[in-house]
Amino acid sequence: MERTTVDVCVVGAGFAGLAAARNLAQAGREVIVLEARDRVGGRVWNRELPDGTVVSAGGTWLGDGQARMFRLAREYGLRAYPQYDGGDHVLRLDGVDHRYRGSIPKAGPVTLASLGLAFARLNAMARRIPADAPWLAPNARTLDARTLGQWLADPLNVPSGTAHTVLKATMSLLFCTDPAEVSLLGALVLARGGGGFEYYTDSGRTETHLLDGGTPELARRMAEGLGDAVRLDTPVRRIVQNGNDAEVGTDALTVRARRVIVAVPPVLAGRILFEPALPPAAVHLRQRMTPGSIIRVHTSYPEAFWRGQRLSGQTLAPLSAVPVTIDQTPPGGRPGVLSSYAFGPGAVRLGRLDPKERRDVWLHALAERFGPEALHPLGYLETDWSAEAWSAGGMIGHFPPGALTGYGRALREPVGRIHWAGTETATQMHGLMEGAVRSGERAAREVLALN
Amino acid sequence: MERTTVDVCVVGAGFAGLAAARNLAQAGREVIVLEARDRVGGRVWNRELPDGTVVSAGGTWLGDGQARMFRLAREYGLRAYPQYDGGDHVLRLDGVDHRYRGSIPKAGPVTLASLGLAFARLNAMARRIPADAPWLAPNARTLDARTLGQWLADPLNVPSGTAHTVLKATMSLLFCTDPAEVSLLGALVLARGGGGFEYYTDSGRTETHLLDGGTPELARRMAEGLGDAVRLDTPVRRIVQNGNDAEVGTDALTVRARRVIVAVPPVLAGRILFEPALPPAAVHLRQRMTPGSIIRVHTSYPEAFWRGQRLSGQTLAPLSAVPVTIDQTPPGGRPGVLSSYAFGPGAVRLGRLDPKERRDVWLHALAERFGPEALHPLGYLETDWSAEAWSAGGMIGHFPPGALTGYGRALREPVGRIHWAGTETATQMHGLMEGAVRSGERAAREVLALN
Repeated sequence: MERTTVDVCVVGAGFAGLAAARNLAQAGREVIVLEARDRVGGRVWNRELPDGTVVSAGGTWLGDGQARMFRLAREYGLRAYPQYDGGDHVLRLDGVDHRYRGSIPKAGPVTLASLGLAFARLNAMARRIPADAPWLAPNARTLDARTLGQWLADPLNVPSGTAHTVLKATMSLLFCTDPAEVSLLGALVLARGGGGFEYYTDSGRTETHLLDGGTPELARRMAEGLGDAVRLDTPVRRIVQNGNDAEVGTDALTVRARRVIVAVPPVLAGRILFEPALPPAAVHLRQRMTPGSIIRVHTSYPEAFWRGQRLSGQTLAPLSAVPVTIDQTPPGGRPGVLSSYAFGPGAVRLGRLDPKERRDVWLHALAERFGPEALHPLGYLETDWSAEAWSAGGMIGHFPPGALTGYGRALREPVGRIHWAGTETATQMHGLMEGAVRSGERAAREVLALN
Repeated sequence: MERTTVDVCVVGAGFAGLAAARNLAQAGREVIVLEARDRVGGRVWNRELPDGTVVSAGGTWLGDGQARMFRLAREYGLRAYPQYDGGDHVLRLDGVDHRYRGSIPKAGPVTLASLGLAFARLNAMARRIPADAPWLAPNARTLDARTLGQWLADPLNVPSGTAHTVLKATMSLLFCTDPAEVSLLGALVLARGGGGFEYYTDSGRTETHLLDGGTPELARRMAEGLGDAVRLDTPVRRIVQNGNDAEVGTDALTVRARRVIVAVPPVLAGRILFEPALPPAAVHLRQRMTPGSIIRVHTSYPEAFWRGQRLSGQTLAPLSAVPVTIDQTPPGGRPGVLSSYAFGPGAVRLGRLDPKERRDVWLHALAERFGPEALHPLGYLETDWSAEAWSAGGMIGHFPPGALTGYGRALREPVGRIHWAGTETATQMHGLMEGAVRSGERAAREVLALN
C-alpha cells in the first residue's frame, strides 16, 4: 500500500476537479487528483470512429457567458469554432417535417405562443429563486412538491398540445429523463443558473461553439499541466476524517490531506464510505440526485450529405425513438458526422435491445429525417452513459421532488475537511462544463481561505 | 487474497439473505453469505441500554399474515409475546391529547370519516394494481406521475384538515420521509402487499407481537445455523460475470460462484461495481429507491410509569419533533422502555443538533405527553439509521415519481447470474421483515430452478 501526504486531495478529474486542482497548484498548494477511470474528463470524453475521426461523446458545446471555458481554451491553445448552422433545422411533428431557421420552429401561431409563454413563465419563476439557496424561495415547498412534468401537463401553463409535446421532449433532453421525475423547483435551479431555460435548449443562439480537438482535449491539457499529481484508475473507496487531517483510501494508495475536494457526480459521491458518516442531509441529498439516461450515437458518412439538402442536421422529433440530432462534422468537413440522441425511458428501452436491433432502429429513425443515405454510415459509435460505471447515467444529477427543500442545504456545505464541487453544485451555469469549472474554482477558494 | 468457490454467493446477511442462504443450504447447495457489517440482521439490530437491557432498534414487530416469520421464530426456539396494549393510546392535536383505544382515534366525526374514506380509497386503488407488476396497472403512468403527498393534500381526497395532518404523519412514519417524495403508485405497492395501508399503520390490530430476545436474535440464530458460511466485515465491492460463473470481490476475499443473490437495500446494491455494467434500468431503479431518515430513541425508566396513568405508551403527535412513541418494555416489566421516533426531514433537522441539545429536545417532546418523569431516563440510546453506512437511511427504499413506470421491470429481473432479494423486491408484505424472508426464499427458488 503506497502512502502519500499532500495539502489537498481532489477526488475526480472532470472539469470541476481539474479546475480546483489547477487553482490550488497555482496558489502553491501540493495537490493530488484521484480519478476512477483510465482517463480524465469525466462526463466529457473523446472517442474514435472506426476511420480514426475523433468525436466528443459527452459535453461538447460552449456558448454565451461561458467565459471561464473560453478563457481556459485560449490559455491551453485550443481554438473554438462555430457550430455548423447552414440550412434549415427540422421539427418533426405528426410525421410531418417543419423546416425552420433560427431558434423558433414554424409550428403554427398557437403552438408558438404557447411555447413562448411557457418559457416566459418558467423563467419568471426561476428569476424569483435565490440562486445560492433555492430552498429559501418563498414558495419553495410548493414548487418542490410538484414535478416539472405536472407543470407542463397543466393546460393553464401550456394550452397547446403540440407545444406540450415539444416542451416535454426539450425537457427530457435537458434532464435526460421524464420530467415526471424532476421537481419543479429543481428544474428552475437549472434555468436560474443560465438566465432562462432557453439558454440550455436553444443551441442555435447560445451554445454556439465547439473546440477544435474537443472539450476533452482541454481536460487532457489541464491534467497534463498537473503532471504526476493526477492518478488514473484510482477509485476512492473511503474518506476518513480525524482531528488533524483526512485520509483518502483507494485500493493501492492512501492519501493524507488537510482538505479534500469531492468533485464527482453526486450519486457517485454518495457511494464513498465516509468515516465518521456524513450528516444525514448530505447522505440523502446525494442519494437523491440521480442522473437520467442518455445514449448518444455518432454516425459518419463520406460527407455531410444533409448539407446538400439545405439541412443543418439539427432536428427535433419528439415522438421518435431518437428525438434529437445535430451536425458534429469536424472543421475540415470530412467525414460528415451526425450526433444523435435518445433520452430517459426511451434510452432505457433502446438499451434493452440487442446491439444489432438497436442499430437498426436507430438508423431508421435517422433515415426518416435525412433519407436513405443515413442508413449506411461508414462508422457507427454508441455511447451509453448509463453503462459507464463511473457515470451511472447521464448527463447530470437532477433534483426529484422534496430533495431540495428536505436536504438542499447540504449541497455545498463543507463537512469538516470535505468540500464539494461538480456542476450540480454550481449556482451559475449549473449542469454545464462552465458550471463544473466554476464549482471547482469555488471549492478551491473555500480551501485557500481556510489554510 | 483468499479465494473460495461455492455454488451460490449471497450478498447481505439481513433476513432476505439469511432466508435465501438457509433454503439453499437445506437443498444441498454450498453457499457463502458476505456481510459488510460486523453483525448479521441488517435493518434489524439489538442494542444495549446502559443498564444492559437489550432493545430491538430496527424491525421489531410481527403480526397477522406474517406466517414465515412466526414459523422461523418457532423453529429457532423464540417465543412471541404480545405488544403491551393496556391503557389508552394518545393522539395529540393542536396541543390537546385525545385518548383512545383500539385502532381509531377519537378525533371528531368529520376527521374520522375523512380518515376512513382516505384509507378506503387508497386501498381500493391499491387492490387494482398487479402485485407483481405495478407498472402494468391501467393507470400506472398517471399514478406514478403523482406523489402521495399531492394525493393527501387534495381536499377531494382528504377533506378534513385534521385528517390530513394525521395521514401525513402516518405516511411519513411508513416511508420515513415526506410523502412529497413518494410516488403515489409506489406508495400503493406497499399497501397492495399488506392488504391495505392499515396493515402498516394500525399496530394495535395487526403488528401485535414481539419476539423474546428480539427479531435480531432470530437473525443471529439463522446465521449460526449457517456456521462458517457467514462472513462478517466483508463488504462486496465488485461482481464480475463471465461466461461460466460470477466472481464476487471483497477487500480480502474473492468468491467464485455459479449464482449470486444480492440481498441488500437497493441503494447499496447500486453501489457495487458490476462488470459488465448492469442494464441501465437496473442501475437507475436502484439509484432511485432511496431510503428516508429515521432516528429511534430508547429511553428506560425504573418502571413503565405511563402504565400507571392508564396510558399504553403508544402516541401519535403529528406536529411534535418526536411524532411517535410506543411501549417497548421487556416481558419482565422492568425497566420501563419507551421507543420513540423522528422521521424524514424532521429527523434530519434533529440530526443537525449537537447530541446534548437533541437529547434535550427529545426528552421534552416525551414529557409533553408523559409528564416530567419522562425527562429523567435511566438510559437514553439513539439509533440514527442515516448515520449507519451500511443502511444509508431507514427503513426501506421508496419509489419516487417515475421510477416504477420508467424502470420497475428491473426490480426482480435477474441479470445473468445475479438474482435480487430484499424486502423492497417483495410482492407480499413489502417493506416488512416478512417481505424480506419471502423475497429471499423466492430468490433461492429462482436459483434452484436453474441449477
